[in-house]
Amino acid sequence: MPLKPDLPLPESESRRVGFAIVGLGQLSAEELIPAARTSRHAAIAALVTDDEEKGRAYARALDLTDGDVYPYERFEDLKGREDVEAVYIVLPNSLHREYVERAARMGKHVLCEKPLSVNAGEAQAMVDACKAANVLLMTAYRCQYTPYHWAAREAVQGGRLGRVKLLDSIHGQSEDDPEAWRMKQRLAGGGPLPDVGIYSLNTVRFVLGTEPEWVFATLHQPKDDPRFREVEESVSFVLGFPEGVVANCLTSYGVHKTATLRVLGEEGTVLMDPAFTYQGLSLTISDGQGDFQPGLPDEDQFGLEFDHFAQRVRDGRVPWTPGEEGVQDHRIMDAIYESARTGQVVRLQPAPGRDVFRGEKPEAASQ
Amino acid sequence: MPLKPDLPLPESESRRVGFAIVGLGQLSAEELIPAARTSRHAAIAALVTDDEEKGRAYARALDLTDGDVYPYERFEDLKGREDVEAVYIVLPNSLHREYVERAARMGKHVLCEKPLSVNAGEAQAMVDACKAANVLLMTAYRCQYTPYHWAAREAVQGGRLGRVKLLDSIHGQSEDDPEAWRMKQRLAGGGPLPDVGIYSLNTVRFVLGTEPEWVFATLHQPKDDPRFREVEESVSFVLGFPEGVVANCLTSYGVHKTATLRVLGEEGTVLMDPAFTYQGLSLTISDGQGDFQPGLPDEDQFGLEFDHFAQRVRDGRVPWTPGEEGVQDHRIMDAIYESARTGQVVRLQPAPGRDVFRGEKPEAASQ
Amino acid sequence: MPLKPDLPLPESESRRVGFAIVGLGQLSAEELIPAARTSRHAAIAALVTDDEEKGRAYARALDLTDGDVYPYERFEDLKGREDVEAVYIVLPNSLHREYVERAARMGKHVLCEKPLSVNAGEAQAMVDACKAANVLLMTAYRCQYTPYHWAAREAVQGGRLGRVKLLDSIHGQSEDDPEAWRMKQRLAGGGPLPDVGIYSLNTVRFVLGTEPEWVFATLHQPKDDPRFREVEESVSFVLGFPEGVVANCLTSYGVHKTATLRVLGEEGTVLMDPAFTYQGLSLTISDGQGDFQPGLPDEDQFGLEFDHFAQRVRDGRVPWTPGEEGVQDHRIMDAIYESARTGQVVRLQPAPGRDVFRGEKPEAASQ
Amino acid sequence: MPLKPDLPLPESESRRVGFAIVGLGQLSAEELIPAARTSRHAAIAALVTDDEEKGRAYARALDLTDGDVYPYERFEDLKGREDVEAVYIVLPNSLHREYVERAARMGKHVLCEKPLSVNAGEAQAMVDACKAANVLLMTAYRCQYTPYHWAAREAVQGGRLGRVKLLDSIHGQSEDDPEAWRMKQRLAGGGPLPDVGIYSLNTVRFVLGTEPEWVFATLHQPKDDPRFREVEESVSFVLGFPEGVVANCLTSYGVHKTATLRVLGEEGTVLMDPAFTYQGLSLTISDGQGDFQPGLPDEDQFGLEFDHFAQRVRDGRVPWTPGEEGVQDHRIMDAIYESARTGQVVRLQPAPGRDVFRGEKPEAASQ
Repeated sequence: MPLKPDLPLPESESRRVGFAIVGLGQLSAEELIPAARTSRHAAIAALVTDDEEKGRAYARALDLTDGDVYPYERFEDLKGREDVEAVYIVLPNSLHREYVERAARMGKHVLCEKPLSVNAGEAQAMVDACKAANVLLMTAYRCQYTPYHWAAREAVQGGRLGRVKLLDSIHGQSEDDPEAWRMKQRLAGGGPLPDVGIYSLNTVRFVLGTEPEWVFATLHQPKDDPRFREVEESVSFVLGFPEGVVANCLTSYGVHKTATLRVLGEEGTVLMDPAFTYQGLSLTISDGQGDFQPGLPDEDQFGLEFDHFAQRVRDGRVPWTPGEEGVQDHRIMDAIYESARTGQVVRLQPAPGRDVFRGEKPEAASQ
Repeated sequence: MPLKPDLPLPESESRRVGFAIVGLGQLSAEELIPAARTSRHAAIAALVTDDEEKGRAYARALDLTDGDVYPYERFEDLKGREDVEAVYIVLPNSLHREYVERAARMGKHVLCEKPLSVNAGEAQAMVDACKAANVLLMTAYRCQYTPYHWAAREAVQGGRLGRVKLLDSIHGQSEDDPEAWRMKQRLAGGGPLPDVGIYSLNTVRFVLGTEPEWVFATLHQPKDDPRFREVEESVSFVLGFPEGVVANCLTSYGVHKTATLRVLGEEGTVLMDPAFTYQGLSLTISDGQGDFQPGLPDEDQFGLEFDHFAQRVRDGRVPWTPGEEGVQDHRIMDAIYESARTGQVVRLQPAPGRDVFRGEKPEAASQ
Repeated sequence: MPLKPDLPLPESESRRVGFAIVGLGQLSAEELIPAARTSRHAAIAALVTDDEEKGRAYARALDLTDGDVYPYERFEDLKGREDVEAVYIVLPNSLHREYVERAARMGKHVLCEKPLSVNAGEAQAMVDACKAANVLLMTAYRCQYTPYHWAAREAVQGGRLGRVKLLDSIHGQSEDDPEAWRMKQRLAGGGPLPDVGIYSLNTVRFVLGTEPEWVFATLHQPKDDPRFREVEESVSFVLGFPEGVVANCLTSYGVHKTATLRVLGEEGTVLMDPAFTYQGLSLTISDGQGDFQPGLPDEDQFGLEFDHFAQRVRDGRVPWTPGEEGVQDHRIMDAIYESARTGQVVRLQPAPGRDVFRGEKPEAASQ
Repeated sequence: MPLKPDLPLPESESRRVGFAIVGLGQLSAEELIPAARTSRHAAIAALVTDDEEKGRAYARALDLTDGDVYPYERFEDLKGREDVEAVYIVLPNSLHREYVERAARMGKHVLCEKPLSVNAGEAQAMVDACKAANVLLMTAYRCQYTPYHWAAREAVQGGRLGRVKLLDSIHGQSEDDPEAWRMKQRLAGGGPLPDVGIYSLNTVRFVLGTEPEWVFATLHQPKDDPRFREVEESVSFVLGFPEGVVANCLTSYGVHKTATLRVLGEEGTVLMDPAFTYQGLSLTISDGQGDFQPGLPDEDQFGLEFDHFAQRVRDGRVPWTPGEEGVQDHRIMDAIYESARTGQVVRLQPAPGRDVFRGEKPEAASQ
């Protein structure tokens, strides 16, 4: 995880944007905290957790003090911490709204883990709250900050594939623990769809730049498996985009880890296999000449995400994946669940134009 | 294209099953004739074509005489040719029925190119005609005779992937010629679906061994493209199998060549990329240990197909992919077109059991 | 193994160049005969073998008569066969000279399996004999007729890699039968070096177009292994080319099948892995942009070889890999064995210029 | 770069082994400092550099104070720093000896970048000095701490390949700056050989566990290239191991980045392509069954190295790659240069046994 060769010096702690990490689960421990420690523009200034022991251990590891660890009920104590300009919400989905709104009321900018919420209505309320409080809200869609996924988008939108006709994406993994909050409808708002299927949904929209007009979906929730008492095991969904472009997608909590994206154009194809992973992304562009794997840096995706939001906090511009981007995915997921329930195609609100829910392009866009 | 190392001697011409090739298009010229020339149990004894010059050129290349070339109207002259035990129908789809029935009336066994016909009703009539005439009818599904596709099936059915949950397949290519018979609804019975999409449909059914219960499909037929005046450009179809197993499939005549099959199980996955191609097939089986590409022979698929049917002609047993297998694919394709037309899920006749439409396993099954 | 799409009609038997295949071992049975049957310009007209039964079986398979099978002692009976214009010598290496010279005396053109002979002196005598008899002699270096190896050469010589600095090649396999003629010094003239290592040697020279100035080599011949009583198990050899270019090569009869070629230039690399195989060749060109696998046809290499020589028989030009090309490889292999025996670097005769031992470029050169 | 899932808590700063980083070049900036910040057992406690501004910037980034930055002439001030138990020497090769000896005199344990020194004599003196001072000395051979390279070793030594016969390795890259210290003989002690070729040398020895008996080498130093006024551009070297095992190696500063290792055994092969890289390592084990890529974690290699040495500082045991391991590579490199100079094979001191220069196995050994 090299620092940028041409920018070998990270900013000093005092100039970086200070974040409070809200929630100390596996993602925080294994990804966000290591990423923040090596980012250029962001630094962790506080931790919010009710696990005091764990919080203090991480505080020591981060060279913070015990006083930098806050229980949830004292979240509002961060208000006075001028060195905490932003919070990163890493809580079960159903708690996102509450903490985003509490952060907004304190005037803190908010980076919120995906999915933004549990449905489109809740998600929209969060966007409205941040707008009212005049703070930035960013949905943590890390893939949209990587050179690999941007190179895929560039191949698609730059004409190298000819007109794009079809897409296909799979994101599935095996979840073993029936007691995990991810398996509880009330906490997660769904099963694999909002957790991992959202990557397929989101990245298909990202590479096309347009919005789907309709969805068809079917889901499977095995009755004999205790893991899937509340949420679905698998979803197959089909997205209809303008001009007859169709994307087939699969997601599941019951399969061996798989993460792919394929775009089929008249004159070429893009394949990411794996797509979406934290590291080891692979991109192949094929056309009449042969197959090409561009040489791209495999950068820390959470670091890129932290840095993009820190820069937006500094310049006040809308991040590339603002709250609105998260709301749109919820609208579509709501429609996917409706289609699976009714067995009917569900039509979506038209959203003509390009990148209509997105903000400032990230650095990876120009690589 | 080696002869089998352990069977270095091909049978002499006189002991091989003699075929008449009916139709001398590109597939016959580039694949079937070379394959037959190197097969062990089959030999080409006659050619049926109205292109007399081309017929005579191929006859000379095959060491046949001008007298071994027949125009279509003299097809029945083959009746008296005892050395012609079988015919291989390689004509536009809409002509399959007529020539299968004419061959059956002559008492010749019939190997018929896929798709078997233009719809399930026509296809069933062909099966009935061959049964009445007591001749064998085989649908030329070459993939089901290859070690690669059988190894995929074995990984799926042998338990290596755990319970199978989801499948995904793409088969598309670019068709440029608006005047090709493939682009005429009356001759082809459809567009990419019966021509290349049928591989996805057929192979998904083959690796599972079970039959779908419902389909959902959407198709795209661009109004501004002269190639697609009569037939669709692309189809997305979803197949629902027993126990919640779902297969997403894409097919198109408007995309860069793509041919893949992926099976997702609880504990592992199978990926063929490419699948379905004449050569260069690639199979990866992934599980918790890593990724594995078994070492398999890349044999001539048309040769395997010829040899399987020749052996069935000799032993009188039902071939692995009889006419009934072709009828079943037509039933499902009929439903796919109906779903695309109505926008509704279409339910299929139940067909419980395993391999219910198939016959004698081919040699590749035991490798 | 498709016939050329743009040349769908093979020449009729009567216009093709008729070959007598001299020797009916595994290579003839599994590769040459199938290849000849599908070639455009060559046809098999006679077989020479002392195994009468096998000869007759292949004759029947080829639609030849028993009279087209000749025992070795009646080799000269071919002289009167006007339809036999060329012979293909597929005998143990030590017999190449005798049969090439007997063929030359009959005025037949000669395609001779690699290695051309058992050492440079014998090989040169063969070249001289063919020259004296005014017949063509071609060394059967099939790799030099494939689009893949030509694309590698084009990447090397066309400047895409910048200046070439280093090469590395491995060709090894496992030989199990101590009684095979390949394991007898008197019959084979060496072990893996003249049999499989020659591909590395030959292809390194082919892609560079220049000749080595010196060699260093070491070999291993295990005392406790009955397979290697007479010939070496493995050879490591280093070839020094002009301007400091060096090629490291490995060959062995004691290793799992491996066949690779790598060329390292200032700005890019070429990797063939596998190189040299009958099918499934793979080529990757890497440079600062990424990795590229050109889309190339995987044609039957023996068919390409047959066709090149048949065309030279027709036009009288020097084939791309004439006898002189085979002599040069023997000179270098002689030096490799000398270096291994003495432990010293052995210097070679200078051979300045490009492709100094080669003739007319094959069709693959212009693809 | 996840923290270990089963050990989510890093040790607190106070319990980790404190290192002074001596030298703030690119390797320190881009690899070592990020790695140390996320390691479990090591922490950076001081920086030694004459670039005061850069030192202070990194100190701030690391939450150290200006007082934790030392110029080289005040290196001995670290003696009194009880929180600095070890130093990591990241200086030009020719300075290694001086700083290792100065550190040893202070009683600090020493982790020294590869190559350990500029020749075997200098390297042995460093080992002797650390032994006399009773401090640990470890050569920073990061590859020997990775799961990938250990899995390759396990495949080789565990019998999966059958008896190993041959090895082949390439490590080369393009160096553009004629003024870099790497291009100065006095500072670097050589060109690509001690810098990148050492990985091939070292890893070949590591996977075999035995020591070479002789070497042959040739080098190229183009006269017309200002980059190579002092050091060689390329080296080809052949290593002879016991029982006839031979390794061919190539290294260069004049080629497109290439890093591979191949081991050929009777029944299988190991391929690492790339080998040696900081991330994205790839391992394929091939045998009669097919090709297998084990699923292995792509961990931060410098973090693994830091942690191994920190644990040895805690338990006092000899690290896996002690100074003696670095000395042995210098003995062989000295012989390589001698062979290239004389054109003769150079014999090495016998070193029978297994892993005779190595210490305690790292954690990756048991994965």
